Amino acid sequence: MTELHDNLQEVKLLMTTTIPGTTPRDLANALRVLAMDAVEAANSGHPGMPMGMADIATALWQHHLRHNPTSPLWPDRDRFILSNGHGSMLHYALLHLTGYNLELEELRNFRQWHSKTPGHPERGYTPGVETTTGPLGQGLANAVGMALAETLLASEFNTSEHTIVDHHTYVFLGDGCLMEGLSHEACTLAGTWGLNKLIAFWDDNGISIDGHIEPWFSHDVPAQYRAYGWNVIENIDGHDHQSVLHAIEDAKAQHERPTLICCRTTIGYGAPTKAGTHDVHGAPLGQNEIRAARKALGWTHEPFVIPQNLQGAWDARERGATLEQDWNDRFARYELEYPEKAAEFRRRLAGELPTNWTETRDDLLAGASTETTSLATRKTSQNVLETLVPALPEVIGGSADLTPSNLTRVRASKPLEFTQGGASGNYVQYGVREFGMTAIMNGLAAHGGFLPYGGTFAIFSDYARNALRMAALMKIKVVYVLTHDSIGVGEDGPTHQPIEQAASLRLIPNLNVWRPADLFETAVAWTHAVEYQGPTALLLSRQNLPQLAREPQARPDVARGGYVLSDAEDARVILIATGSEVHLAVLAAEQLAAEGIGARVVSMPSTTTFDAQDDTYRSTVLPRVLPRVAVEAAHADGWWKYVGLDGEVIGLTTFGESAPAARLFQEFGVTVENIVSAAKRVMVRAEGK
Amino acid sequence: MTELHDNLQEVKLLMTTTIPGTTPRDLANALRVLAMDAVEAANSGHPGMPMGMADIATALWQHHLRHNPTSPLWPDRDRFILSNGHGSMLHYALLHLTGYNLELEELRNFRQWHSKTPGHPERGYTPGVETTTGPLGQGLANAVGMALAETLLASEFNTSEHTIVDHHTYVFLGDGCLMEGLSHEACTLAGTWGLNKLIAFWDDNGISIDGHIEPWFSHDVPAQYRAYGWNVIENIDGHDHQSVLHAIEDAKAQHERPTLICCRTTIGYGAPTKAGTHDVHGAPLGQNEIRAARKALGWTHEPFVIPQNLQGAWDARERGATLEQDWNDRFARYELEYPEKAAEFRRRLAGELPTNWTETRDDLLAGASTETTSLATRKTSQNVLETLVPALPEVIGGSADLTPSNLTRVRASKPLEFTQGGASGNYVQYGVREFGMTAIMNGLAAHGGFLPYGGTFAIFSDYARNALRMAALMKIKVVYVLTHDSIGVGEDGPTHQPIEQAASLRLIPNLNVWRPADLFETAVAWTHAVEYQGPTALLLSRQNLPQLAREPQARPDVARGGYVLSDAEDARVILIATGSEVHLAVLAAEQLAAEGIGARVVSMPSTTTFDAQDDTYRSTVLPRVLPRVAVEAAHADGWWKYVGLDGEVIGLTTFGESAPAARLFQEFGVTVENIVSAAKRVMVRAEGK
Repeated sequence: MTELHDNLQEVKLLMTTTIPGTTPRDLANALRVLAMDAVEAANSGHPGMPMGMADIATALWQHHLRHNPTSPLWPDRDRFILSNGHGSMLHYALLHLTGYNLELEELRNFRQWHSKTPGHPERGYTPGVETTTGPLGQGLANAVGMALAETLLASEFNTSEHTIVDHHTYVFLGDGCLMEGLSHEACTLAGTWGLNKLIAFWDDNGISIDGHIEPWFSHDVPAQYRAYGWNVIENIDGHDHQSVLHAIEDAKAQHERPTLICCRTTIGYGAPTKAGTHDVHGAPLGQNEIRAARKALGWTHEPFVIPQNLQGAWDARERGATLEQDWNDRFARYELEYPEKAAEFRRRLAGELPTNWTETRDDLLAGASTETTSLATRKTSQNVLETLVPALPEVIGGSADLTPSNLTRVRASKPLEFTQGGASGNYVQYGVREFGMTAIMNGLAAHGGFLPYGGTFAIFSDYARNALRMAALMKIKVVYVLTHDSIGVGEDGPTHQPIEQAASLRLIPNLNVWRPADLFETAVAWTHAVEYQGPTALLLSRQNLPQLAREPQARPDVARGGYVLSDAEDARVILIATGSEVHLAVLAAEQLAAEGIGARVVSMPSTTTFDAQDDTYRSTVLPRVLPRVAVEAAHADGWWKYVGLDGEVIGLTTFGESAPAARLFQEFGVTVENIVSAAKRVMVRAEGK
Repeated sequence: MTELHDNLQEVKLLMTTTIPGTTPRDLANALRVLAMDAVEAANSGHPGMPMGMADIATALWQHHLRHNPTSPLWPDRDRFILSNGHGSMLHYALLHLTGYNLELEELRNFRQWHSKTPGHPERGYTPGVETTTGPLGQGLANAVGMALAETLLASEFNTSEHTIVDHHTYVFLGDGCLMEGLSHEACTLAGTWGLNKLIAFWDDNGISIDGHIEPWFSHDVPAQYRAYGWNVIENIDGHDHQSVLHAIEDAKAQHERPTLICCRTTIGYGAPTKAGTHDVHGAPLGQNEIRAARKALGWTHEPFVIPQNLQGAWDARERGATLEQDWNDRFARYELEYPEKAAEFRRRLAGELPTNWTETRDDLLAGASTETTSLATRKTSQNVLETLVPALPEVIGGSADLTPSNLTRVRASKPLEFTQGGASGNYVQYGVREFGMTAIMNGLAAHGGFLPYGGTFAIFSDYARNALRMAALMKIKVVYVLTHDSIGVGEDGPTHQPIEQAASLRLIPNLNVWRPADLFETAVAWTHAVEYQGPTALLLSRQNLPQLAREPQARPDVARGGYVLSDAEDARVILIATGSEVHLAVLAAEQLAAEGIGARVVSMPSTTTFDAQDDTYRSTVLPRVLPRVAVEAAHADGWWKYVGLDGEVIGLTTFGESAPAARLFQEFGVTVENIVSAAKRVMVRAEGK
């Protein structure tokens, strides 16, 4: 009750700052016309959602959202996510009007080359955009991750006298987000976890691109979300300011459950002939309709002109500065009493590594180079995590219900525990929810304060693929632990054997992919992932692999993604391999040597990292004159880039089969014998020229 | 009430066929020991689910499932799907014992090379397996597609006096299937559509791989499914034969809604120390536990030995033959009265094309070669569908809520309409459910009688990727209409611009990928897809493209996936392009010709089809001596296979941007000018040698 009272007090306080003469509807109409005008200017975009959700946005942003436009990264700001990201102009209008560094010119340049107003909201492009959205359902799942981040940070850093983490995560979403299966994965977890500071606004407008949604979306969503353990506030008129305000107050008074506010709205509200139809969803309204809409809304101003009183009423800079100053004062007191915690909080939120990181890394690598036992790389990954997890408090691990297979849990891992108003732990049992896990990891990373990793079988990266892509697009730091990385899976068969996954993951821009061959390469891959500002996928074997002999001077080159593992003075052929096939290449080189043929073995744990090296290094490792054979127990096609038309690739172009792994390597020809034969063939082709 | 009465009569009839002295528990135990023994023999597999669901399976298969073991493709059989496919030994034991062509030797060879008993159930490997399962949630979604197929076929072919389509779809599923978002997508549709002949059995055992599921799966599933519009039968003891039987009877009496039967079970039921724990899920029990389990179950027989009375009681061949004979008699009467409908039904279920197909195809291609207007290939695809949809009654189209963008609907398309007990239409509005759509399409195709196509943006093939893969693994005929296939998407920006999708789709074995350049290539791609026994992905442009000049003698070669579109007598370089970039390559060749340099243009609409051609053809199109430049406004890396180390690729290795399409082609360098420069560079490298 105290908190409810506080909330109401806060609402009152904020409301008094509204300039008289600017009704909530006027404020909302400013958003509507900016959206109409910008979409029209771009001749591209989605006016329907901004016009439909403008009243809801006004209620939230005018009276509840705690943010500071001049300081968009203030750590304790509320997070606002537009999961129905096609309505980006709503967000841009809000950011512009409340005083973010987003000039009117940027709105005029909506969707143009290198404007700060891309077609869908993009993190890093626009101040105030917390996460990139557009692919439906993902903003909502990111929001679940952010709300989890808030709860964990609050429990870790707040004390009985000091509250330095205390913010809400607000998310706008449409019917499409709720149709996507991802919403089910993320929202069942949010309900189970009881993330009460997550407040979602469903834009229940009854329209999707194919038209009136009854034939494909007419189940009882409120009952569904109640079944998920959510607080559901039904039957809110999304165009009634007071109703929305009261719903938000109720939601903030909730201490146990996330809230879904079901807002009935009219898509394209204000457009006289197109409102309430799918025509208003994704195309400019046209000059006539815009003129008529201006008239219907009582809006007399020219395109992109917002009268000064409304500008003033929307301007949130002063209020934001006050809010942040209050927090700064509180943080200063906290810092006085808990200087170490405060420093750690700052470090975590800034995404900086601990000061002793270099030492941690170097010790880890030194230790890793001494291992001699054969180990699966999923196991070597676990060994590395035994060091990393305790050394990096920002690390939060997990698995999509494959912990004992992925080997993602270590001694320092503590599964999440939720208590009313708090949470502890650094290991998330996501359940069988690969896409949900990945999108929640994105939310944890985007919130700040966390470096998430999550495990599943490599094959099921397919289920999560677009969330990996979104991490890559945002260049956020997350690590995917993808075990069971080839036909080495064995008996589980083709449904569980990745074939095309390695090659296709390597195609995602910004995603670093590592397929280490032994403990040392695994340690390099993991430490590279910790240092790389972007996502990393680790492809790890189920089966045991020998530790490779590697000269100390070769070790630094491992981090370059591809390096000469072993060489011959008179090398006439290069054998390139990754992961579980590197030791086969070594054996093939030995056999060739026994026949008097010199062969170089290049271990290429990360083509993506190798490709980023300079020409000189790459051509030193792979001199143009030498013919090449590449070996990987997965799809062959990615390797033609490295072997050329005269090279050969030992790999697969078919699905796998169900049988013991050793049999599969034989049957699919990923053998020392075949590497040797291929080496001889490419030499003949090269030397016969 | 009449139907309920019929059902109860049927149950009674079937129950009398049970041999006295063989209790339901004995029958179930036969399944349990076979599962234990086979997993032990393979030293690999999942005994927990078969032991837990054996009693449910006994109730269903002994008393309700209408099937004929000696005729596994009998069209009106009930469909049985194991969505929790890791419990494959349950299905294999059932198939073996009821008399399918699955000898005991195959069970002894569980999970071995080319046995009929692969790790997870695979369609085409094992008689009686309707669809390949393992990746969780997909069997359930396939089952929704099968139940939809049944409803549509029943409405189309049954008459007031003749019922030739009347079967149920039964699906077993676990907690994992329900955690996956795919279940939400498929089951909201099943509820909205009212597929009353779909009956799902939830193996509610409280255990998943990470342990007791409360921390990650404890929401109110029955309430969730009621909210979805399902008939939910709660609190069934999955080890109590009568309770399960009654639940099935209740489910079959349901005329409006699909049914979820919530069966509480003990995973690994019968294993004295491991039952009820995750230890029993995915590993052999070990000899000691198996011995103890045999004792606990009162089972005195040796491994793989089933006493004759139980074998007799399980044998369903006679019962099945009677069921099918009854149907055959009914079908014969139907055929007498409706010979054309009967012939069409046979054709549809056999998956044969209409007898006039060749004529339809040739007319379509002839017409397509005369078009001269610039058209987007999403539009040329729609034009082709205007012919195909009315010509092929088996075609069932749809879109994941992008109909006006994908242009998947044509004049002959009729959106689904559901009435109690029936459905009509040939166009499915799937809503924003890409994965659900794709897995439901798989179910429609796997049921038989349908050739499904479905549209979404190419970028969102990511959401559906593993279902595309499953179609490819099963080699079932489905077509994905993936529009907005490059940075040509323009203003919607990088979240909506496919970059790596074309290259990564081409990596999926058995999936044919076509990226046509104009109407004629689109018509070839579509007709190839109709004839190809496997899935096809069509990558189609948003933007208009010119129709290409093409000599009549070149037309047959289009179907080979890559062909010489234009040539020069003295060609010194090959320009390879696909889709929206082919006309750029033609312009580049013209510019080179103006400079006195002969260039061949190879249009390569389908690398996957081209790769399947013989060496002679391929080297005729791409003679080894000529240097190559490949052009595609998407990820470059797939093209090194065709251009070699000395070639060049004009493409992207980064994400796109938000801007008008023409600007993006300029900024990312996919221009005639750059093709010309690259051609000159590769010529210098080749000729300088």
